[in-house]
Amino acid sequence: MDHEPDRREIADLLVRYCVYLDRMELDALAGLFTPECRVEYGPDQRLQSAGACALAASLQRMWRWARTSHHLSNIVVEFDAAAAARATSYVLAWHQRPDGSTATVYGQYRDRLVRRDGRWLIDERRMLMNGCDAGFKLDLYPAERRPPPDGWIAPDLDRR
Amino acid sequence: MDHEPDRREIADLLVRYCVYLDRMELDALAGLFTPECRVEYGPDQRLQSAGACALAASLQRMWRWARTSHHLSNIVVEFDAAAAARATSYVLAWHQRPDGSTATVYGQYRDRLVRRDGRWLIDERRMLMNGCDAGFKLDLYPAERRPPPDGWIAPDLDRR
Amino acid sequence: MDHEPDRREIADLLVRYCVYLDRMELDALAGLFTPECRVEYGPDQRLQSAGACALAASLQRMWRWARTSHHLSNIVVEFDAAAAARATSYVLAWHQRPDGSTATVYGQYRDRLVRRDGRWLIDERRMLMNGCDAGFKLDLYPAERRPPPDGWIAPDLDRR
Repeated sequence: MDHEPDRREIADLLVRYCVYLDRMELDALAGLFTPECRVEYGPDQRLQSAGACALAASLQRMWRWARTSHHLSNIVVEFDAAAAARATSYVLAWHQRPDGSTATVYGQYRDRLVRRDGRWLIDERRMLMNGCDAGFKLDLYPAERRPPPDGWIAPDLDRR
Repeated sequence: MDHEPDRREIADLLVRYCVYLDRMELDALAGLFTPECRVEYGPDQRLQSAGACALAASLQRMWRWARTSHHLSNIVVEFDAAAAARATSYVLAWHQRPDGSTATVYGQYRDRLVRRDGRWLIDERRMLMNGCDAGFKLDLYPAERRPPPDGWIAPDLDRR
Repeated sequence: MDHEPDRREIADLLVRYCVYLDRMELDALAGLFTPECRVEYGPDQRLQSAGACALAASLQRMWRWARTSHHLSNIVVEFDAAAAARATSYVLAWHQRPDGSTATVYGQYRDRLVRRDGRWLIDERRMLMNGCDAGFKLDLYPAERRPPPDGWIAPDLDRR
């Protein structure tokens, strides 16, 4: 089955989320989600929304930053059915406060998408974090990473 | 209308710009533009060029950096006609001076492209900036961002 | 000849490498390479491997980092034959040590790929570096960059 046009549409959708967020066009952003979507950016309840309208309202919090820049990459899409897909993507999310200080997150989005009336929409989004710099002060869920085997010893590779 | 091969070609073109710039292969870079292109990186007149030859000459300024790395993402292409398109893309542009200090820009390219003799070329490029770190010392045009509504109050989300 | 499905598969493969590496799923990662692959991350012999099993063993060194995040972009694929291709890609590789300190590399992968039993695999990988921040302490191979012509004088563009 040729999913190429669907893949392209989904990649486009995920990118537009970033573009709308950095422009703070929250109505356009909400239009990328199903009306009944579930979105969870982190364990704090204020980072969780039910429904596209609530999501748009909640993302007003991004105005506490003076500027943001969300760079998407590493998109992997898998199809569960003709109108149902899962996507993983990476985001380098740079934020700047009004005082000029910055915070960068190296994150992942885990999405469930559905195709309705000929358009792909995000029905479920969960954000995970590979890591962040010292400037970022919110708790996010850590992405999965296997621990080393018992007794593993780090090689002495790096210059001092 | 199936624009997939065009989209792929345009994405390839935008990526090659970054690759050639980081290699300082300015003749190859100029070949990605129309001979009569208009390019504007910022309000300083020295950041504006008319024509591909002038662009190549102007970009010699990038040698004031010891090294650069331009990471492209968030490519969105829209077609105005079979041989005319507009593209938006994000760039994370990292620069290092000979003294080792660095400057990073979180930018956007806004391009108009045309298809001539079977090849897509950039006819107009304008660079905008979502932001930059403290090391970057050039004025660029800010990308659009909606301001908060009057009376909006920032939530108290972040740890101190 | 339409290489679109191959391009997509190869892009997917290169992205999965990043995802498996950040999860430290080294067996899955090794499955993206030919059994007899040659991989070279840098001049130190401990950064060079012959064969997918040796590669997986060698990459255990990444556990000396507490977390990593590999963001891939700028993928360019060229085909030498129906089952042989070369790919260039950029990686922004962020690493965090157990003590919280970080190291970022702005790198490039240069790959040779082959198609076997209907699947694309990396047969040869060489890593180059556009640059890195002060936190990164390994010597990698520098990517190619043309020097300025003799007598070139840097313009005085940047604010102090």
